[in-house]
Amino acid sequence: MQSIFRGKHFITLQEWTREEIDTLLEVSGDLKLDFAMDVPTPYLLYKTIFLMFFEQSTRTRNSMEAGIAQLGGHGNFLDTSTMQIAHGEVAKDTAVILSRYGHGIACRNCSWGIGNKYLRDMAKWSSAPVMNLQCDLYHPMQGIADLLTIREKVGDLKRCKVSVIWAYAKSHKKPISVPLTQVLLFPRYGMDVTFAYPQGYELPDWAVNQAKENADRHGGSIRITNDMEEAYTGANIVIPKNWGSWAGKSNVDPNELLERNRGWKCTERMMTLADRNVLYMHALPADRENEVENSVIDGPRSIVYDEAENRLHTAKAVMTLTMGGK
Amino acid sequence: MQSIFRGKHFITLQEWTREEIDTLLEVSGDLKLDFAMDVPTPYLLYKTIFLMFFEQSTRTRNSMEAGIAQLGGHGNFLDTSTMQIAHGEVAKDTAVILSRYGHGIACRNCSWGIGNKYLRDMAKWSSAPVMNLQCDLYHPMQGIADLLTIREKVGDLKRCKVSVIWAYAKSHKKPISVPLTQVLLFPRYGMDVTFAYPQGYELPDWAVNQAKENADRHGGSIRITNDMEEAYTGANIVIPKNWGSWAGKSNVDPNELLERNRGWKCTERMMTLADRNVLYMHALPADRENEVENSVIDGPRSIVYDEAENRLHTAKAVMTLTMGGK
Amino acid sequence: MQSIFRGKHFITLQEWTREEIDTLLEVSGDLKLDFAMDVPTPYLLYKTIFLMFFEQSTRTRNSMEAGIAQLGGHGNFLDTSTMQIAHGEVAKDTAVILSRYGHGIACRNCSWGIGNKYLRDMAKWSSAPVMNLQCDLYHPMQGIADLLTIREKVGDLKRCKVSVIWAYAKSHKKPISVPLTQVLLFPRYGMDVTFAYPQGYELPDWAVNQAKENADRHGGSIRITNDMEEAYTGANIVIPKNWGSWAGKSNVDPNELLERNRGWKCTERMMTLADRNVLYMHALPADRENEVENSVIDGPRSIVYDEAENRLHTAKAVMTLTMGGK
Repeated sequence: MQSIFRGKHFITLQEWTREEIDTLLEVSGDLKLDFAMDVPTPYLLYKTIFLMFFEQSTRTRNSMEAGIAQLGGHGNFLDTSTMQIAHGEVAKDTAVILSRYGHGIACRNCSWGIGNKYLRDMAKWSSAPVMNLQCDLYHPMQGIADLLTIREKVGDLKRCKVSVIWAYAKSHKKPISVPLTQVLLFPRYGMDVTFAYPQGYELPDWAVNQAKENADRHGGSIRITNDMEEAYTGANIVIPKNWGSWAGKSNVDPNELLERNRGWKCTERMMTLADRNVLYMHALPADRENEVENSVIDGPRSIVYDEAENRLHTAKAVMTLTMGGK
Repeated sequence: MQSIFRGKHFITLQEWTREEIDTLLEVSGDLKLDFAMDVPTPYLLYKTIFLMFFEQSTRTRNSMEAGIAQLGGHGNFLDTSTMQIAHGEVAKDTAVILSRYGHGIACRNCSWGIGNKYLRDMAKWSSAPVMNLQCDLYHPMQGIADLLTIREKVGDLKRCKVSVIWAYAKSHKKPISVPLTQVLLFPRYGMDVTFAYPQGYELPDWAVNQAKENADRHGGSIRITNDMEEAYTGANIVIPKNWGSWAGKSNVDPNELLERNRGWKCTERMMTLADRNVLYMHALPADRENEVENSVIDGPRSIVYDEAENRLHTAKAVMTLTMGGK
Repeated sequence: MQSIFRGKHFITLQEWTREEIDTLLEVSGDLKLDFAMDVPTPYLLYKTIFLMFFEQSTRTRNSMEAGIAQLGGHGNFLDTSTMQIAHGEVAKDTAVILSRYGHGIACRNCSWGIGNKYLRDMAKWSSAPVMNLQCDLYHPMQGIADLLTIREKVGDLKRCKVSVIWAYAKSHKKPISVPLTQVLLFPRYGMDVTFAYPQGYELPDWAVNQAKENADRHGGSIRITNDMEEAYTGANIVIPKNWGSWAGKSNVDPNELLERNRGWKCTERMMTLADRNVLYMHALPADRENEVENSVIDGPRSIVYDEAENRLHTAKAVMTLTMGGK
């Protein structure tokens, strides 16, 4: 078991070893139990973290801000109206100064081609751990919560069939960070991942290659398909969710490409193709009746609220280990 | 004395019994004394509450956020720029998830025909107590602070003559929740309530009927009049305040209706009609020189700051009882 | 040593005696050591302060909000979107009510001719200490952090040659509060201050006169010049920074006046005129390549991050003494 975490950045789970992630899951489970029993967990008493949001958020912001408070510390919530980035403040200045003022920096910046670079730049200069609250490439907070949720529901992760499936949405363009994180992470736990999307919604080649390496090394598998029905068939877990053609090589107009694929919806009918105990997951907010039928997301196979709740416990575990750990 | 409150919603005082409200007043008084003596009151240590504001606020936001901090907990301040309601987040999703992340949800939503429904919807799905920070119909946080203030000033509430009076204002349209809460609540404490307004500013019939029932049951009384002078005459307490013709049956244009009633102002002259120890109250912010003459609101009969201060102590009492109580 | 501070306003250092400022520096140093050693300093446990910002801020907001949290208390962050000033809330109402809700009020209001008056008005009515987070005239939080930084770097402040120098900037018009605070404060510690700017960027006469009095009384000196090179020559500390011609008597168009003085930049060449151990300071955010060459602000003579860090420790000292002190 890995036990040295203090100061470790949390930018992508790819940079955390299996043992480190195992510890993170253990700590998450412990914090969840304590929360249920109303046992105080002031592991970060009087500690402060800066929560920088370049985009709106509900689960991430609230799980982090409530989480650090439940740990006895405080999070300064900063959005674009309260940061001086526009006034010539470079990442270096922000990182050096905020890390001197407190014990952690967490940041959401999903701008394509910018977000991850910004986080890396912060990490280079910060004297405190930098946490990724979603960038253009990764969403490790979501990934770790998903992993905890699946482990709680199915127990043994080995050979668990999980399908990460593109879905149609009318709402704002979603980053690829959630599916990218999932296809990288799940094979490391021996899961059999099916990754399904219409042509034009490919992930970058380096990401797919890394996912395959992860599968090879850890005994999981990756199957890529453009056939939605294939992805549902026999699945234990389905995660249908929209993402944009950010990384795609398609020459088709993005709006036309999107409308062409309205059929990619998680329906009751699709769910009948899956394993009879199949579970439905979504990072939320879902585009109801576009990504998914209400009867599915509100139905007995849906575990979206358990998944959302685990964002709290895992966020607290990440902060506890990196900001307060040994 | 009622002592079981944990998890009880605080949407309207109408759903709290007299005994429950009595306990709330006792706890408010206790917390006020402790605050004055600088005695720590960490009754909600490491607990978290979500403070959702669909409209701006000064007293409510600050009394809640400072209040929970003084109780050892933390409030996540959320306004429309930091909630994902616009991104397809329904009340159910918000309520389930936030209540799993923390120990209470408080919300201001004054949209006519929407606010109270939204709160009820939240309460239906929330596993934590839901608190009303003002909706289109009720403002129980203001009501309980007003009641505490009056009790502190006049002692015996029975037969206390309180006049809730419409007043002209130039500033933004005010909801009916403050007067509606007052005419429902005060008769329950044996007060003689005069409710005065120009034609067109009626409250909904159901509210008036409920107020009369409250008076009948508890020994108070309700008198309704369109004569401002009658309302001031002999009053122990006057509460002149603007509200919109939200619930009115008037066919007159709202702006014309408003301008026609510029004479409904709390003046020095009006105050001379009242009891010689009359007290002036206002929930603030007041539209100075429109609702009230400066010499009245800043004068010796005004208790607006004591009334405002009691928002803190009563808010802390509501949180302590519902989030941390037995 | 001065030890009675509770309730003392912090609007300008001019109203704090040398002994009081000495104590403030001592406490700052102590809090800095404790922070370095991770020793808890819950001197303001469960105490609350209101942080009112009429303008954006990074260092000030974060040093205050993280600072109060590290002291065990909580800061309510309020910006213009969350204050009801626009709805007819006068300074008196705000000050009376917020001071009854908590233990301190801190405010940034840089509007020329308004900011300081607003703070004075708040202080008149507040029952809690009022702290200036920068107004149109003063920035005592920056001044005290600068003083601590210089003392840490040069040890003996007597006869230390510090040059406060105007610099060209493209970005938004800066208030005069930083240089005004510095020229008032530094002479009180026996420093030899050179104050340099192009014609049109004068400080108000009363400020210069007060600075000279301070120099006469405490053994420092003030030299005023319109020659940039003279200001760099032999300096131990240089603080080149833009400010607007707010108080100037110039009849020239402000934009023309500004562009005419593009040459007022802190360059490597200028730095060679100074003492060989010269230190470069800036309150940040700097207008890079306009106020200063990157090679200077990022170079070995720059102490801007140490200066910025001290904003945290001094802010905590101000709060500890005025809100929690004897």
